[in-house]
Amino acid sequence: MSNDKVIAVLGAGSWGTALSIVLADNGYRVRLWGNKKEQIDEINRTHMNAFYLPGIELQPEIKGYFSLDETLKGLDTIVLAVPTKAIRDVCRQIVEVRKMPLSIIHVSKGIEPGSLMRISEMIEEEIPEAVLQDVTVLSGPSHAEEVSLRHPTTVTVSSKKMQAAKKAQDIFMNSNFRVYTNPDIIGVEMGGSLKNIIALAAGISDGLGYGDNAKAALMTRGLAEIARLGTKMGANPLTFLGLAGIGDLIVTCTSVHSRNWRAGNMLGKGKKLDDVLNSMGMVVEGVRTTKAAYQLAHKFNVKMPITDALYHVLFADLNPKEAVDHLMGRLKKHEMEDLMDMLDEQFQG
Amino acid sequence: MSNDKVIAVLGAGSWGTALSIVLADNGYRVRLWGNKKEQIDEINRTHMNAFYLPGIELQPEIKGYFSLDETLKGLDTIVLAVPTKAIRDVCRQIVEVRKMPLSIIHVSKGIEPGSLMRISEMIEEEIPEAVLQDVTVLSGPSHAEEVSLRHPTTVTVSSKKMQAAKKAQDIFMNSNFRVYTNPDIIGVEMGGSLKNIIALAAGISDGLGYGDNAKAALMTRGLAEIARLGTKMGANPLTFLGLAGIGDLIVTCTSVHSRNWRAGNMLGKGKKLDDVLNSMGMVVEGVRTTKAAYQLAHKFNVKMPITDALYHVLFADLNPKEAVDHLMGRLKKHEMEDLMDMLDEQFQG
Repeated sequence: MSNDKVIAVLGAGSWGTALSIVLADNGYRVRLWGNKKEQIDEINRTHMNAFYLPGIELQPEIKGYFSLDETLKGLDTIVLAVPTKAIRDVCRQIVEVRKMPLSIIHVSKGIEPGSLMRISEMIEEEIPEAVLQDVTVLSGPSHAEEVSLRHPTTVTVSSKKMQAAKKAQDIFMNSNFRVYTNPDIIGVEMGGSLKNIIALAAGISDGLGYGDNAKAALMTRGLAEIARLGTKMGANPLTFLGLAGIGDLIVTCTSVHSRNWRAGNMLGKGKKLDDVLNSMGMVVEGVRTTKAAYQLAHKFNVKMPITDALYHVLFADLNPKEAVDHLMGRLKKHEMEDLMDMLDEQFQG
Repeated sequence: MSNDKVIAVLGAGSWGTALSIVLADNGYRVRLWGNKKEQIDEINRTHMNAFYLPGIELQPEIKGYFSLDETLKGLDTIVLAVPTKAIRDVCRQIVEVRKMPLSIIHVSKGIEPGSLMRISEMIEEEIPEAVLQDVTVLSGPSHAEEVSLRHPTTVTVSSKKMQAAKKAQDIFMNSNFRVYTNPDIIGVEMGGSLKNIIALAAGISDGLGYGDNAKAALMTRGLAEIARLGTKMGANPLTFLGLAGIGDLIVTCTSVHSRNWRAGNMLGKGKKLDDVLNSMGMVVEGVRTTKAAYQLAHKFNVKMPITDALYHVLFADLNPKEAVDHLMGRLKKHEMEDLMDMLDEQFQG
């Protein structure tokens, strides 16, 4: 069967499409499923997904699918690449048409407000054990545009079942797209999700014209608060020093490709949140993640000053300039106190 | 005396000049010493230091000095802002004219090849105890251009004597330039020095056109090897998660202001090292630091793959593309192994 490998990617946004290109490079026939009929037709007619990956030609091995039933037929593994908000709905659609065991590799980054669940937890809640063979997360510094151009990229995969992570590694690994395993699924999912909050804040700082020094300070403190919350939730603090932590934080805060940074940048320039979101035309995960992380910080009693400030900018009309000025001024006099807070949980064992 | 505060800054490059502006903002009369007569005359005539900080007006409280004797007269504190290569020479000149105790705040970033000394160690070796009251280092994510424009900036000061660090904090702190203390002088000096190596490598990756995903991966692994060596030399690993570690690393690798990044970028585009250094016209500290760190890695038996690859690019004609491709391919299959290596020393207590 090795020369007739088939896999499905659910979600035809930029990331799902870029990963389809990787999979086609690796010899897979790829069923790229989406819920917009015209977009799927366009993919099959033009071999392009022009709105999400302008200028990129898709290999003939990538075929657009509109029926989920057809998409899943005869497959044992799917890649789930839909926004956090759509995860539960798509899982319910899967349950309707699928009775046989299925491996899911999810590649989304977010936390659900209210339930405060990570994406793998939402999937486990929606899909019965008899169908859900295993869930793996793939995360790391990986802008879709660059992946589609075969620029060198490294990502991390993680699962509660190490065998599933290794299988995902084998599926995706090639010479441009390097895949590493990490057993800490909590850390990998939290790192990927929470960095979007810091990217929004970094975008605001840039939008205010504050420069690279200020942004680097925000990112440094941002990593500390991400690690503080993640560790309290059971993650290994070392994960936040890896690709799914600092690596993804760097790329999301400093690249023009980043949607969350761009949204923040517009906020910093004085635009209103609703106008920003309308003008993007794509999902900005960091907005909902900020709400969820704000709730998590209270639940776990963790200090998250950047998340807190951003929450008030997004949902309580706090002026962005006031928020950033307050953040820049509030570091303790001794840097070590802040840093010790960060790894407190680790030292308390 | 509070309305007649005087301080000297030795070294009229961009960083010394930017810090002079901070000090003048804080009410100091600043003696800015340099060894190029025409440049000092220009500063006094035009109130500009056009080559190093184009377009920036210097306050009248900043006066250029050419005689070291006059510069040091009646002062108890100086800021030392000369390239690593000039540290010993300037210290010897100080010893010739100064017999009274003096506090030195140094703001340079480098390690001396051969002796493998940090800058504070070189200063301690050159200046007798009777004259050298204390040495403090000031470091962190702080491009001179942005500091001179009063953009928000945060830095760390550290000294073996906490009182000296606190005094430096008081001297420099203002609402745009936030100063924090950290007792770990080894970590603060090593973080600031070693990040220049990673910035050269990041510049090479960008010069090769490899994109933000690749650069973020290099930076992530770069922080790990910086922390590995620093910790082995006695630093607190947490310092590398702070402003003088990850903060400075981010700003140096991602900002167009960074000389080390620019030099790397030219190397990645195929230029020869000598041509790059000649065309810069300013010191690129990372080149000598790479040599020193390569020697340190051997001395302390620490794996530093990026430093090692860069050493061979700079001094043994290794092709930059081969070096980066090798680095991207060499991560272990399990990310955690790499990360555990990083903090080994911490866990071994």
